[in-house]
Amino acid sequence: MSAVPAPTSAATNPVPFEFEAGPWSHHHLARVEQALSLWVGDGAPAGLGDAMRYAVLDGGKRLRPLLVLAAYEAVCSGQPAAAAAAPATAADDAALRAACAVELIHAYSLVHDDMPCMDNDVLRRGKPTVHVQFGEAQALLAGDALQAFAFELLTPDGSAIPPATQATLCRLLARAAGSAGMAGGQAIDLASVGLALTEDQLRQMHRLKTGALLQGSVLMGAVCGHAAQPAYQALSDYGAAMGLAFQVVDDILDVVADSATLGKTAGKDAAADKPTYVSLLGLARAQAYAQELLRESQAALERSGLPDTRALGALADMVVRRSH
Amino acid sequence: MSAVPAPTSAATNPVPFEFEAGPWSHHHLARVEQALSLWVGDGAPAGLGDAMRYAVLDGGKRLRPLLVLAAYEAVCSGQPAAAAAAPATAADDAALRAACAVELIHAYSLVHDDMPCMDNDVLRRGKPTVHVQFGEAQALLAGDALQAFAFELLTPDGSAIPPATQATLCRLLARAAGSAGMAGGQAIDLASVGLALTEDQLRQMHRLKTGALLQGSVLMGAVCGHAAQPAYQALSDYGAAMGLAFQVVDDILDVVADSATLGKTAGKDAAADKPTYVSLLGLARAQAYAQELLRESQAALERSGLPDTRALGALADMVVRRSH
Repeated sequence: MSAVPAPTSAATNPVPFEFEAGPWSHHHLARVEQALSLWVGDGAPAGLGDAMRYAVLDGGKRLRPLLVLAAYEAVCSGQPAAAAAAPATAADDAALRAACAVELIHAYSLVHDDMPCMDNDVLRRGKPTVHVQFGEAQALLAGDALQAFAFELLTPDGSAIPPATQATLCRLLARAAGSAGMAGGQAIDLASVGLALTEDQLRQMHRLKTGALLQGSVLMGAVCGHAAQPAYQALSDYGAAMGLAFQVVDDILDVVADSATLGKTAGKDAAADKPTYVSLLGLARAQAYAQELLRESQAALERSGLPDTRALGALADMVVRRSH
Repeated sequence: MSAVPAPTSAATNPVPFEFEAGPWSHHHLARVEQALSLWVGDGAPAGLGDAMRYAVLDGGKRLRPLLVLAAYEAVCSGQPAAAAAAPATAADDAALRAACAVELIHAYSLVHDDMPCMDNDVLRRGKPTVHVQFGEAQALLAGDALQAFAFELLTPDGSAIPPATQATLCRLLARAAGSAGMAGGQAIDLASVGLALTEDQLRQMHRLKTGALLQGSVLMGAVCGHAAQPAYQALSDYGAAMGLAFQVVDDILDVVADSATLGKTAGKDAAADKPTYVSLLGLARAQAYAQELLRESQAALERSGLPDTRALGALADMVVRRSH
């Protein structure tokens, strides 16, 4: 994949410990930002377009887009250069669209989550939340429009992206976002305030609420690279472990970090009496569990048989070691 | 199409004035209700699934699903029986899924529209609105989940529906629902309260707000039947005229009907100082405009060259003559 700037002999001679995660992320973040800036709000009425762009273009870690692109490149690293060369433009385009689409779903969920009837948050990424800035009605509509736009991005007219890829990407995204994924997890979260959940129930809630879209991002990247079955399953396992680790760390950060570092209000979970991994396991065991999930995700990458999974490994590492 | 119960010689010898719209609608409404009842909320956490089903399964005219199915059958009526026979199961399945998907988008938009931050309506189809019944947070999530589920329905795993059909259906639905369609029209509506719009501006708002999804329903049905270009364009013109007629009549009914007949609060537009066709043209000219649009839609059906467009004709007729 010509898209990766740094180590040129990566695919043939993987040297994980020499992989430079910084330049890799920097390069791909720039691609994603540019694409989002070009696409989001285009053709929307002025007020709505402004709210959509405000919701999406204000930074964020872009973890989900990076997972799409890292999974895509990992799958491509296992293919002969000749086979990968021909459809590279269409496949690259599909991966970039998938990367943006998962971010749109993530962004819309934050807009709706922050609304007064949900978490009633006024601060996000250090800025006023969308409903504070644009009003509740516009925030509701902007979230709705962002979700629709994610599926529009995945199905460009007259594109060289194979229709089967387009349809599969829509299927994966719809499942990850819907009632058996993110929205379902949020509903369980809503119903769980003040309840004592078992670890199984807590895990199920988080698998849906945050895990489904993180895992879906990995799978969408794999589909863009036309992953074969054993690698696809291993990447799915990677996504499941990494996705759960993300939430465990989120629960830890809500306790140990301050609002300025998080860019959002800290201590909200405890204040809202929400069940978390920290409230269930205690801080030390929650931290150990995050490390265990990190090892699980790395083991899945080894099982994949793909020659270069360094970016995916670095992202899982970042998920567990992040400070916000 | 074996799905149509009544006039058996329809495709070869169309007799528009003998077409029985009642039995046709009744048969297809039963299919749509059964499919929605089977699919909606399946696999969702209990509370969320209940809210999703409440939002969708409580009646409504099901105009959009009927438009999908009528357009699909109109296109099939122009195809040799032999050609249509082979892939009939997959195409029928696609049409039924598309019919349900457009209704899910419509239903989610009503749930979100009714919320306090939008129209703040407590009555819909004669019942408490979703947020009154389940709370605002659950209503927000149910709407979000219904939108995702629409795209999930269009992309079934391991289905015989061609991937190209699945992808095109997702594209049409995403555009009709998003910022250049329904959500965009709602944003313009929101920004127009108290403003004096020109007729062009009012038409543009309604083309997006209600017209896009009605026209999209027709086009999705046409795609399921693999419509050729001239017929597809004529059906698109039919959808545009019929979709605008729907909104003109909606504006008229808000003035002339009572809340009991409408099943929702009457007189809301005037009370909210919203621009409507009645406020712009006066009642008599608005009624004449609805008739003109009905004639336009019927002329487009004649241009289509399709042998049996009677159900589409009957639906346009119903749109203009309805009392609620």
